[in-house]
Amino acid sequence: MSVINLDYLSANPIAPAVQEAMIEVIRTNHGNPSSPHQLGDQALNALEKARSSVAKLINAADPKEIVFTSGGTESINHAVKGAAWAKAEKGKHIVTSNIEHNAVLRTLRRLRMWDFQVTSVPVDAQGRVNPDDVAAAIRNDTVLVSIMHANNEIGTLQPIREIGEITRKKKVLFHCDAVVSVGVVPVDVQALQVDLLSLAANQFYGPSGVGGLYVRRGSGLWPLLDGGVQENNKRAGTENLIGIAGLGAAADLAMERMEARVAHDLRLKKRLVAGLKEKIPDIFLNGHPDLSLPNLVSVSIRFIEGEGVVLMLDEEGIVAATRSACAAGALQASHVLLSIGRDFADAQGTLVLTFGEEIAEADIDRFLTVLAEVVQTLRNMSPLYRQVMKERAAAG
Amino acid sequence: MSVINLDYLSANPIAPAVQEAMIEVIRTNHGNPSSPHQLGDQALNALEKARSSVAKLINAADPKEIVFTSGGTESINHAVKGAAWAKAEKGKHIVTSNIEHNAVLRTLRRLRMWDFQVTSVPVDAQGRVNPDDVAAAIRNDTVLVSIMHANNEIGTLQPIREIGEITRKKKVLFHCDAVVSVGVVPVDVQALQVDLLSLAANQFYGPSGVGGLYVRRGSGLWPLLDGGVQENNKRAGTENLIGIAGLGAAADLAMERMEARVAHDLRLKKRLVAGLKEKIPDIFLNGHPDLSLPNLVSVSIRFIEGEGVVLMLDEEGIVAATRSACAAGALQASHVLLSIGRDFADAQGTLVLTFGEEIAEADIDRFLTVLAEVVQTLRNMSPLYRQVMKERAAAG
Repeated sequence: MSVINLDYLSANPIAPAVQEAMIEVIRTNHGNPSSPHQLGDQALNALEKARSSVAKLINAADPKEIVFTSGGTESINHAVKGAAWAKAEKGKHIVTSNIEHNAVLRTLRRLRMWDFQVTSVPVDAQGRVNPDDVAAAIRNDTVLVSIMHANNEIGTLQPIREIGEITRKKKVLFHCDAVVSVGVVPVDVQALQVDLLSLAANQFYGPSGVGGLYVRRGSGLWPLLDGGVQENNKRAGTENLIGIAGLGAAADLAMERMEARVAHDLRLKKRLVAGLKEKIPDIFLNGHPDLSLPNLVSVSIRFIEGEGVVLMLDEEGIVAATRSACAAGALQASHVLLSIGRDFADAQGTLVLTFGEEIAEADIDRFLTVLAEVVQTLRNMSPLYRQVMKERAAAG
Repeated sequence: MSVINLDYLSANPIAPAVQEAMIEVIRTNHGNPSSPHQLGDQALNALEKARSSVAKLINAADPKEIVFTSGGTESINHAVKGAAWAKAEKGKHIVTSNIEHNAVLRTLRRLRMWDFQVTSVPVDAQGRVNPDDVAAAIRNDTVLVSIMHANNEIGTLQPIREIGEITRKKKVLFHCDAVVSVGVVPVDVQALQVDLLSLAANQFYGPSGVGGLYVRRGSGLWPLLDGGVQENNKRAGTENLIGIAGLGAAADLAMERMEARVAHDLRLKKRLVAGLKEKIPDIFLNGHPDLSLPNLVSVSIRFIEGEGVVLMLDEEGIVAATRSACAAGALQASHVLLSIGRDFADAQGTLVLTFGEEIAEADIDRFLTVLAEVVQTLRNMSPLYRQVMKERAAAG
């Protein structure tokens, strides 16, 4: 039985062209980009080719503004800690939102150990930040604003361009966590007016464990990794050339196929949303209906636990997620879902469905059929569900 | 013309079995180890298999003590900064040696920004630290000792076990940068009595950009990357599974072939050292003659610049290094060579020759022949050399 993967967010397949690019680097045994000899030259060419591809994907003014990292989490840690430490003499205040990824939240929590203060702005019921709230939160001692582009649990896109205008006017560094949006929807760092932007290859058919940080020229943040002078002196350590070649190839592919992918994803999303509404009563669809990722549907299914759904779907050859894969292991309710007004119980029954090129409409249909059965089975075992049904029947 | 690679330290070839292990992970599209479904299970198995292999290679008591990182530099940054920050309330003093890698030196320089103080112990003319000096340098507020196992420019091995006895007795955390020795010579973290030990796959026929940090249970350091709960909550971020599978395969291979590799390397080293002494006058061989890496020869060639030698060798199809690849781009004389008593000029004429399984005795012979010609050509262009020769002739 072939598996239907509706958890692209955590288990994104590596595109065939990306596989081949990585295998070529493995087989030809490229050297170390820092070596001033022919084995080094070959490696340096591969490295800089990938850097140009990533720069183009996000419209960076100069490929030197791209720093390769070990993934979205490192990019975010580097951006947030590196900016905070570099600007600490100016002030120790940071503005963020209530629905950031744990990589941002826990990095900010860590910075509190060095007496940084954080103001977190709320989001509306669809998960949107109000740029006016960001403007109001910025103080004289604010050194950084960190707001994500798209949310990894509900898909909502933020008004980054409007926030970028505010931060630029107020001369505060602006970091945008665009890990789940780069390569999925068009991202233009110059139009968005961001200073720092985090991305990861495994969100757009590239390998895990490799990413990039856009550092606008003149941003002046500290490195997270000290040592050698790699990455234009912004990130020490011999490069993961195999992964970086994969990231570059994935960036090329994303530019080539962006329009087709978005159209395909939107078609699946429409079908999935319509099917959920039709087949399963007592659900909430989370996130903004339009200003959101095309490849993500977040649904809270009342009276059940997401964990149980995932296990039962798995037995039927369908993989899905209840929350960000990076947060697996945490037992609290999702802070994102609570922030948009879901209660604890409904948050627990939330599925995050993400998909892409290898998924067909027939896969969505099969998923909907199986899900409806699974939900009914689980609800039939739920005392709360039976009680609510009884009350509704009595109410008439 | 096939290339003779005498710069294994920076451009280590990836062993065929390691290549295959990585390609298998690429092709089968493993998922995300954190996902609680079948794609995740497959990935988790691959991850934990690699962790066991690395644990065995360095004789860690428990695979959970291995944290996968993006390479030696991250391991070192994590160990040193993570320990310093975690123990800052106890004290802000760190002991190290004068010949550590830039990843340690620059990390310690960074920590000075947070008011940490560093005592650096000297080395003798062969590059050895005296354990008594380490004992004497430890104060009441010392929270970390960081001493490398083998030096990457001169190959000298340090008395880590003796230092480990001292730190354990004094209850101070001990980090050992073993990046250039793990997988090359036997390393046993329990026998060495270290608390933290850094390693990198690209030093033993594995890929670049992936490494490990041994964290002895109870060491209690802070993460460098905050976010998800990966790596037993010690290092956030979706894992570089392809690279980690390569590291695991390289570890398996290193255990299997350790004895044969060391014997092969020592045979080459003996031939290389004898040939250098015989064919090239006015040289210094750097490092300890016996207590040193089997795969490294460091030679300072008087009256010439290493950069010129490397370029001319490159034209003859031989790649070699003048200094640590991680330090390329730096223009100062090597702090390691100055520490063992070389002067600035001789340090500039230093070659670091590293080699391994693919190098044959015939390659060493060809290198020696070409090097002798290159050195003579360069010396003939050197006014200093001609003057010294004239003075020697006059003296008799």
